[in-house]
Amino acid sequence: MDERVREHAEVLVDWSARVEAGDDVVVSVAEDAHDLGVAVAEALGERGANVTTLYGSAEVSRAYLKGSERGDREFDDPAVERALFEAADAYLRIGGGRNTTATADVSSETRQAYATARQGVREARMDTDWVSTVHPTRSLAQQAGMAYEEYREFVYDAVLRDWEALADEMAAMKEALDAGDEVRIVTERDDAPDTDVSMSIAGRTAVNSAASVAYDSHNLPSGEVFTAPYDTEGEAFFDVPMTIDATRVRDVHLVFEGGEVVGFSAGAGEDALASVLDTDAGARKLGELGIGMNRGIDRFTDSILFDEKMGDTVHLAVGRAYDACPPEGESGNDSAVHVDMISDVSEDSRLEIDGEVVQRNGTFRWEDGFEG
Amino acid sequence: MDERVREHAEVLVDWSARVEAGDDVVVSVAEDAHDLGVAVAEALGERGANVTTLYGSAEVSRAYLKGSERGDREFDDPAVERALFEAADAYLRIGGGRNTTATADVSSETRQAYATARQGVREARMDTDWVSTVHPTRSLAQQAGMAYEEYREFVYDAVLRDWEALADEMAAMKEALDAGDEVRIVTERDDAPDTDVSMSIAGRTAVNSAASVAYDSHNLPSGEVFTAPYDTEGEAFFDVPMTIDATRVRDVHLVFEGGEVVGFSAGAGEDALASVLDTDAGARKLGELGIGMNRGIDRFTDSILFDEKMGDTVHLAVGRAYDACPPEGESGNDSAVHVDMISDVSEDSRLEIDGEVVQRNGTFRWEDGFEG
Repeated sequence: MDERVREHAEVLVDWSARVEAGDDVVVSVAEDAHDLGVAVAEALGERGANVTTLYGSAEVSRAYLKGSERGDREFDDPAVERALFEAADAYLRIGGGRNTTATADVSSETRQAYATARQGVREARMDTDWVSTVHPTRSLAQQAGMAYEEYREFVYDAVLRDWEALADEMAAMKEALDAGDEVRIVTERDDAPDTDVSMSIAGRTAVNSAASVAYDSHNLPSGEVFTAPYDTEGEAFFDVPMTIDATRVRDVHLVFEGGEVVGFSAGAGEDALASVLDTDAGARKLGELGIGMNRGIDRFTDSILFDEKMGDTVHLAVGRAYDACPPEGESGNDSAVHVDMISDVSEDSRLEIDGEVVQRNGTFRWEDGFEG
Repeated sequence: MDERVREHAEVLVDWSARVEAGDDVVVSVAEDAHDLGVAVAEALGERGANVTTLYGSAEVSRAYLKGSERGDREFDDPAVERALFEAADAYLRIGGGRNTTATADVSSETRQAYATARQGVREARMDTDWVSTVHPTRSLAQQAGMAYEEYREFVYDAVLRDWEALADEMAAMKEALDAGDEVRIVTERDDAPDTDVSMSIAGRTAVNSAASVAYDSHNLPSGEVFTAPYDTEGEAFFDVPMTIDATRVRDVHLVFEGGEVVGFSAGAGEDALASVLDTDAGARKLGELGIGMNRGIDRFTDSILFDEKMGDTVHLAVGRAYDACPPEGESGNDSAVHVDMISDVSEDSRLEIDGEVVQRNGTFRWEDGFEG
């Protein structure tokens, strides 16, 4: 076995999920994630944990849902899966299937009904120390437009970081956001519409998403600091391509007034964007401002697990805000959607907090070469 | 997908496990059993059941146990897996890995400690409507010494029977055994030592193992009628090769006196046989007499799931008796082992109940061509 698979397993078990002896751990292994599943099981055995392994197959899910459509059945509350997650201390989800569009022909009504019936399962799962990661597969390489070996290098560069050091660096960013009242993002590039957007973050607490449950962070890789902004004003352009409900969306331009999107356009996929913004009242307000700080991620791969953490990027999400950001007892923006949109800020750009430049052309003020 | 995979799934879900709408079903899918897992999920969706899918990977188990050895840990009672099976109505185990010897390098101490800690899990699992089957894989074809396509034909011939008709035929055999007091098996072949062995079955109830939980039968394929004999006398020769603890054993000869094995020999693997017989007091007594009645199985494949159900065979097992056979409140032969040994009875042989011939040269008395 490739030594990097073992290292990935150790980061997942020790840094991310903080598994200890006696913990009851549920591991979900996707169709082609077998090797990482094996390495994780070995690490869990060594730590003295108990393990139950689920088969996270999108083809099995698709077959179950298609059969359910044909049987015209109602979905029940699934007692077994609820009991499983209620008894679990940690949940490690290892993605990496054989076809990222394996469930493409399941109707949205069926998905919705299934998701609604599984509300209790989802809550029990979120109550565990859960972490989501992926094993590099040919299917994911294809989605990224990369060769398989090239994609493996990419994933391990992103995952096998010095997380302790990155967490320290991100703590400085979190501190700046927590102390600040207003964020302004400006980009002035020749080849793209300008961005000049301001938002309030007063009273909001940022999350240092350092790929560990100890930091309230549940993705591996991670490497972003995010908060929940409001009262957004101005215009923003997002040059990073993305996929919304299987539709390719490019070059999104949003205009904000009084905290809401009042105008929008896209170079491709404008209908999919419109459909997101029309979901509910919260879908026209921001739910997230995120700052990508994982410099192990150096290209876009059409996967939000990686894209939004890339160094030299910032992202804004319309829709639901993360619960940990608003003040105790207050809830953030509410919506059924949460769609991230990403801007490259490596050139001709700056990020200001209360008028002070914190990042210019991708370089943070605590880094060498920062030009205040 | 091969239509036979779908048919296999339907037999498993409907005939074997009797799944109904609202049932909570746990399915375990081995590494190469994906296709049958997909077909089973589709059938379960159509029936309106809930499904939770486990990854039944021998390589994941091996990694967990090797890691546990290195970590020198104690095994706990696994709360998640107990909760899972306690909440389940049915458990469908689909075998079919990539290597039948995937756990060969795990020490017997580790296996034993792991099995002991999982006693509660095992009991919860046995309390469900559980059924064990296999998807034909290249690994199983190799164990059987067969080509892959040839092995697939073999498996589907065994599994896709008219189970209703076979259950009726087996009911006649069960009736004869339930009414009888003594069974005698005689074979007189030129090329093998004679068998002439008698055993009491007075007061014992036979199981019509018709591959369905409705018949207290938990294997697919099945197709045997078995009971729990005692007071065995005589000599028996078993010409069908078998594997005991990874050792090939052939041509076993047993001598019984006063219900116990008092002499034994084997053409190969005699040490493995000796080790079984020395396990405990019950290991020298019979725990089972079984009569194979599945004529879809026409050859030995070194898998007890198939071999013991083959038409024209009988088998005796030393060790533990099945709970359902002794009279209410009485327990059958007790032992930590249960090892089946099989004889071909297609020629020069007869099976008598209370002196009356029930099967001669493989033909039952209710079949055409029976020579009483």
